[in-house]
Formats: sequence, structure tokens, C-alpha cells
Amino acid sequence: MADAAVAAVDWGTTRMRVWLLDAGGAVLAERRSDEGLLSVADAGGFEAVLERHLDELGAAKDLPVITCGMVGARQGWIEAPYVTLPAKIDAVLSGAIKVPGIWRDVRIVPGAALKLQMRPDVMRGEETQLAGAAAKFADGSALVCLPGTHSKWALVRDGVLTDFSTWMTGELFSVIAAHSILSRSVAKDTSVDPESEAFATWVGRALASPQDITTKLFKIRAGGLLFGMGEEDSTAALSGLLMGAEIASAKRQYGVGDVLLVASGPLALLYGMALSIAGYTVTRIDADQAVRAGLFAAAQRNFLEPAKASA
Amino acid sequence: MADAAVAAVDWGTTRMRVWLLDAGGAVLAERRSDEGLLSVADAGGFEAVLERHLDELGAAKDLPVITCGMVGARQGWIEAPYVTLPAKIDAVLSGAIKVPGIWRDVRIVPGAALKLQMRPDVMRGEETQLAGAAAKFADGSALVCLPGTHSKWALVRDGVLTDFSTWMTGELFSVIAAHSILSRSVAKDTSVDPESEAFATWVGRALASPQDITTKLFKIRAGGLLFGMGEEDSTAALSGLLMGAEIASAKRQYGVGDVLLVASGPLALLYGMALSIAGYTVTRIDADQAVRAGLFAAAQRNFLEPAKASA
Repeated sequence: MADAAVAAVDWGTTRMRVWLLDAGGAVLAERRSDEGLLSVADAGGFEAVLERHLDELGAAKDLPVITCGMVGARQGWIEAPYVTLPAKIDAVLSGAIKVPGIWRDVRIVPGAALKLQMRPDVMRGEETQLAGAAAKFADGSALVCLPGTHSKWALVRDGVLTDFSTWMTGELFSVIAAHSILSRSVAKDTSVDPESEAFATWVGRALASPQDITTKLFKIRAGGLLFGMGEEDSTAALSGLLMGAEIASAKRQYGVGDVLLVASGPLALLYGMALSIAGYTVTRIDADQAVRAGLFAAAQRNFLEPAKASA
Repeated sequence: MADAAVAAVDWGTTRMRVWLLDAGGAVLAERRSDEGLLSVADAGGFEAVLERHLDELGAAKDLPVITCGMVGARQGWIEAPYVTLPAKIDAVLSGAIKVPGIWRDVRIVPGAALKLQMRPDVMRGEETQLAGAAAKFADGSALVCLPGTHSKWALVRDGVLTDFSTWMTGELFSVIAAHSILSRSVAKDTSVDPESEAFATWVGRALASPQDITTKLFKIRAGGLLFGMGEEDSTAALSGLLMGAEIASAKRQYGVGDVLLVASGPLALLYGMALSIAGYTVTRIDADQAVRAGLFAAAQRNFLEPAKASA
């Protein structure tokens, strides 16, 4: 991998992805693993895990590494303190923290924090996705939806991240499906068909009365007991209800109109459908591509254009 | 226990309670155990568990038993089919189902169901608590709040159960505290001081914008990371947020005014506080006393006044 200019690593709570990129940001090689924060200690620690993957990819010993995500959390490799809003996205990327005490040059992009007493919020990784999606912003401004375990909605104005908020949609889906009474109602395979009528119906119900989510959850169980609602529809209902609740709440906070959806795979299709039902006009960008582009932009600011980075 | 007229058993998902009652309904003896539905198979099955407890209490071999709760669910001892609303509470109690194929006369009070396609709902056990609380109803009518794992609000008019709805408040608290990112924020001991400022603050926040619950949950985590909110306050916040969400939603459905709160212990104090904040005038009745009174009323209708029961 003589052409590699940098390794880009998206390192989250449950998984990591490593790409070797050339000087133009093109992907030369890729690895994915489940060695996220939760299992990295058992796998030998951050440095050992990273070096193993770089070795497998044939990376040079002096290849610099740019990384983002929970790797920079207090319980991560080293803490990359949050940049406080409002913050220029470019400035966040430029402030990557160097991991001390190791031979390789590894830098971690900081997260961003909204330090409002009434609605504090934090992100790690999404700031990099936002940077990677910036090419799609109209005049440097956009309302961006980044769904996932902890879904984020972010407001960017002229390249400045001015506001964001987190909904626990994905995590609530997982813990309710696995650990609550609804575990008896939903399917083992929790994948949901975005075209299913049950999904659209329950998105609509959440949008119609988002203040009733904790009672509507139980209606999924009761619908199975009294009306024979099946596992597949119950799973779609749970997914639709929680996504609808997120979108209704975000809509109230940020208004309705154009939204840039940063998502991959099935989630992109489900959110695309749910956002359309709620009246949004959706432009989609692939989440993997966005984080890679953001990491490459961060690498340029931190390694590849050192003069600019220190300016 | 020669004076015992009946054994009353409240048999739920996670626990059971057995009382020996005399002909006037007074308690002669009591036992509590964790042999609820989830563990009864491992403990030898329903009959063996029941007989062991009755034996410990010195109950006669021919003492009749009245029971209510999840014991009558499809996955319980035998299914006691739901009575469909609207239903006279007296009539629900009179329709207890006899367990077949055993020597002792054991009868299970049926649950109640709201068979509405748009908001189906079910209860098992609460119908018996409602019967036991009936002495406190004004002219046989009341709005009743029965908090718990699956909190119920019920509307009774002239002794007829006309409507009810379930909020998954208690179960959401448990699964979120144990299995989500908030497990890192809340205390191991999840008891909450009803007088705590954090509890009242978060009840108020939920009442102010109940459509934002799934984002406010994450603010508890972020409040810890950015403003040092401690474990005790985070636990109180989670509790207040979910109870406030329930009450805001119930208020929209049933209106505000007098409410009869059927609850015991810490939950009674927390709901008493939260309901007051929401503007309700609360009359409290102990949940244990209510279920016992309801079971005794059911026993009278099924065993002690057989002529009336078959009328």
C-alpha cells in the first residue's frame, strides 16, 4: 500500500472501520470489526487493535492515522475534549488531539457539545459526518438528520454548527425489543420493510400524538393479544412509533422543509419513508461515505496541509 | 388456621402474595414470594407452589382459593379470558374461572380488555384492585391511577369500568436504567426521594413538552457529562421524566381533577407528588389493601355467597 497517504478510522462504541486513503481521498483498502469501545480492552487495547488492522492492510509503520467517534470519549483511548457550540465545522476538524506516548502519529477528532443548562447535548463522530456531508449543503447551510443508536439532528449555518439534539431512538428500539414485555410481540429478526403498511401507520400515529408514546408502546402488545397483530407488524410498529416520535419532536424544534439524511442501508430507507410521511423533502447521503470524507478532510487539516492546520 | 374462610392470592409476573382471610375479610396470615409467572415452572409449577405456601400457613386441605393477576394469562396456570369493556366490575369478579383437574377449589378472576382497534388494551389484577377500591368511589364513579410496571388509568362510572389505558412507565424505567447508555448515569440503588428537586424539575419538564421524551432522556446523560449531574439526580430525573410523560398523556385523555391513587410504598409517594404537580387532587388507597379487598369481594361472589354468584 505504497500509495496510502493516511488511515481513516471510524471508532465507535460497538464497532470500528478502517480505510486506507490515497492523497486524493480515494479508498485503497478497508477493514471492519466489532472491536468497538465495549470490547477493545479484551482485544488487547486500542493501540494493539489498531496496529493489527493496519498490519493486515499492509500499512507503512509511519502512516498517520485520523480517527473519530467514541475513541475520543473519557472512557476511550484518550479524551478529545468537546468543542462547544457554536463551532465552525472546519475548526472542529482542525483541532484533532494527538495520542501521546506511541510511535505512530494518531489523532482523534474532538466531539461537539451544546452547553445549555436546559438542553445539554453531546456528539462524537457525527461532527465528522457533517464535515463529510458539507458538499451537499446549500450555501453552507442545512438541517441534517443522522439516525442511529442515538439519532442526531443538526443545524448548520454558513459552515457553523449552531445547534443539535439527540433522540435515543435506536437504543430504545433495541432495549425495548430485547428486554421489555414487547420482546414477546416482536420478531427475532428485527429488520423492518420500509414499504410495510404497519410501519407507515405507526409513524403516522406517533406524528399525530407524540406525547402518547409510552402508552402507544403497550398498544403494540395489546394489539397482538386482542387482534392477533403478528410479529412482523409488531416490529414495524415499534420501529415506526419511535422514529415517528423522533421526527415529530425534531419537527417542533427545527421546523419542516428540506432535510439532509446521512444514513446507510435499511435505516436510510426507513428514515427516508418516515421523513416523507412527516412532510420533509429528503436529500440522502451515504453515512459511510460521509464519515470517510470527513475523516479525509480532517487528515488534510492535521497532516497533509500542516501549514494550514497550524494557521 | 381454623377461622380461615378463604385464601386470597395476588399472582403476578414476578411475585405472588398469599393471605388467609376470615369470613369477614380480616387477614389471619400472609406470605410473599418471588415465585411469579417467570419462575413458577422452576419452582415446581403453579399447584405445587400454591400448596407449599398454603401448607406453611396451616391452611385446611379444602380451603377455597381466589386468585387474580397474570396467573390467568394465556401463559399462566389456565387462561381466564378477558371480560370486554364496558363491564360492571362486580360482574368481572363473579366470573372467576375454576382451575380444572385439581382437588382444591381454586378460581381465577378474569382480566379486562378494551377491544378498540385504534387503542386496544388489557389488564390483569387491576380489575380486582379497582373492586377493592370501590368503597372510595364517589357515587360509584372515579378516575383511578394504578401505577406500576405497566401503569393503568381507569375510568369507572356507576360501578361500570368504561375505559382504561396502560403506560409502560415502570418497565421503561427498569430497562432504560439497566440496559441503555443511561445505566452509566443512574445510581445502582434506583430509589428516588419524592421530595428531591430533580424529581420535581423533570416531572415539570415532561409535563411541559411530553412529545420530547425520547430526546429528554439523552439530556440526562449529557447533563452528567457537561454539568456534572450526579447519579442520584439522574435517577430522579429518569423517574420524573417517565412519570411526567405518563401523567401528561393521561391528563390529555381523561382530563384533570380528582384522582384515586391505588399504590403502596415509595411509588405512592412519588406519584402523589407528580400528580399534585400536574394539578390533580389525590385521594390515596393502599394497593395491597385494595387487591386484598377485591379478592375478598370476589371470594364472596364465587364461594361464600354461591346463590348470589349464580344469580
